[in-house]
Amino acid sequence: MKIAIHGLGRMGMQIARKLAESGEHTVIAHNRSAEPIDEAASYGALAAYSKEEVIAAFGGEQVVVWVMLPHEITPTQIEEWLEYLKPGDIIIDGGNSDFRATKLLNEKVTAKGISFLDIAVSGGIWGYSNGFPLMVGSDDATAFSTIEPVLKTLVQPGGMYAHFGPSGAGHYVKMVHNAIEYGMMESLGEGFRMLHDGPYQNIDLAKAADLWQHHSVITSWLTELSRDAFQKSPELEGISGYVAESGEARWTLEAAKDLGIALPSIQAAFDVRLASQKGETNFATKVVAAQRNKFGGHNLNGEGAA
Amino acid sequence: MKIAIHGLGRMGMQIARKLAESGEHTVIAHNRSAEPIDEAASYGALAAYSKEEVIAAFGGEQVVVWVMLPHEITPTQIEEWLEYLKPGDIIIDGGNSDFRATKLLNEKVTAKGISFLDIAVSGGIWGYSNGFPLMVGSDDATAFSTIEPVLKTLVQPGGMYAHFGPSGAGHYVKMVHNAIEYGMMESLGEGFRMLHDGPYQNIDLAKAADLWQHHSVITSWLTELSRDAFQKSPELEGISGYVAESGEARWTLEAAKDLGIALPSIQAAFDVRLASQKGETNFATKVVAAQRNKFGGHNLNGEGAA
Repeated sequence: MKIAIHGLGRMGMQIARKLAESGEHTVIAHNRSAEPIDEAASYGALAAYSKEEVIAAFGGEQVVVWVMLPHEITPTQIEEWLEYLKPGDIIIDGGNSDFRATKLLNEKVTAKGISFLDIAVSGGIWGYSNGFPLMVGSDDATAFSTIEPVLKTLVQPGGMYAHFGPSGAGHYVKMVHNAIEYGMMESLGEGFRMLHDGPYQNIDLAKAADLWQHHSVITSWLTELSRDAFQKSPELEGISGYVAESGEARWTLEAAKDLGIALPSIQAAFDVRLASQKGETNFATKVVAAQRNKFGGHNLNGEGAA
Repeated sequence: MKIAIHGLGRMGMQIARKLAESGEHTVIAHNRSAEPIDEAASYGALAAYSKEEVIAAFGGEQVVVWVMLPHEITPTQIEEWLEYLKPGDIIIDGGNSDFRATKLLNEKVTAKGISFLDIAVSGGIWGYSNGFPLMVGSDDATAFSTIEPVLKTLVQPGGMYAHFGPSGAGHYVKMVHNAIEYGMMESLGEGFRMLHDGPYQNIDLAKAADLWQHHSVITSWLTELSRDAFQKSPELEGISGYVAESGEARWTLEAAKDLGIALPSIQAAFDVRLASQKGETNFATKVVAAQRNKFGGHNLNGEGAA
């Protein structure tokens, strides 16, 4: 099918590339700056340097735009798209948006007769090769069916997609996923700190992580990434221990308070990140920063981290 | 080689069976009650109904005894063994002992000229088929080399063993592993509760866990076990939400306080288990109980849980 990808950052570029290279879809690549558009074109996408060019590339057919932008600018950008789209078109928010914002946006989009889906994407910088896990929310089962061919391509070879419920449900499931991620990362960070700063000198952290990755109860991708980080640098040199947050755990904690639910481990993990941003860093926060860099390509020391 | 296994519970039986069935070792199976001994004999082990029979089975050769008992009775039992062993013999504590108790015991054992190793075992009830992750501590490199053939068998096909440092280091690394496990389990429990009790009705938890297991950042054995539990019962019926603790997180938190280190996520996970034992249960503690049952075969509702 024909689909436009708007926003060619780390995740958007992977998605545009995977779809374009599959040979099964016509990808129209759009971005604020031109360079990423040209990169996407080198993978086989059609370059569109403006919203007008995106619309023109569909030649009057049903327009499908996948917006893959930071959540801070997503609502504004989607509202801009509404000026260009016609009833029956489809717009997708693929970013890490707050489900509450998604529900509000859904009202505005659908009021114009345009279909709206939230498709949350995990898998970090490895989704292109592993296949993406895609969490979908939408009130519109027809629109979901229409874009399924794209999802089928994106999950190859080892990802998975599922429609979890009405508008915002995809972002909600992803938000909770990321909150769990915060807690798991913090738990691993605290544990590795106990090995590093504990009563036994010179415990080989890379070896411990590697052993735990051999069918122990905490076998996990995050343990594997920790092992890789320790193999590269046992002391995690060059990592300040500043850990950025990207919103999802904060929103999960807000939603939990609205529901009257306590999330003590996730709350603790979140608070540690906030403290790290005020300079309270230690070996545990270094481990978390190192993991984050490994799965997401995130900047190690906070500058410009998202 | 020839090795006695004393204590044929969930973990000891798996170890005795794996070693006996390998055909590479002579296993002498000992236990307080006779039935497990007879079961071990059915796997090819030699039955020994008393410590005297264990010693006799070695026929004057170097005796190697692997003690696999609850930590509460391990020191007493190992001290009893000292009455039967001769200098040059080897005793192994394979249980989940407190590393501080291990270090004290090591002094008593080695004062008699007997070698002592702590070999901590993870992998739950799946180690027999997956291979065990084995964390070794000992001051005695020669004794470690002597028993390596046994370790090589136990890690088949996908486990791993490593010697992490002096006496107690194996138990220490396992203790920290289990503390991380508490934090990871609690994080997953909190997250699944947010899906279950959140603003979206009827989110398919088994499907969410399955999707997260397809290359999301929280891909882990614990997520897989959660999926299995939800597939069996989406509401985790019959699970009270009582979650037992087996000591390691408690000891990790004690050790952390001695070191002046805060472990907020692990502390929260531990506190939630304590509260669950006073009746403060919810969907999150049910998830943790279900995971614990899946990996360890632990009793679901606390009675007799270890």
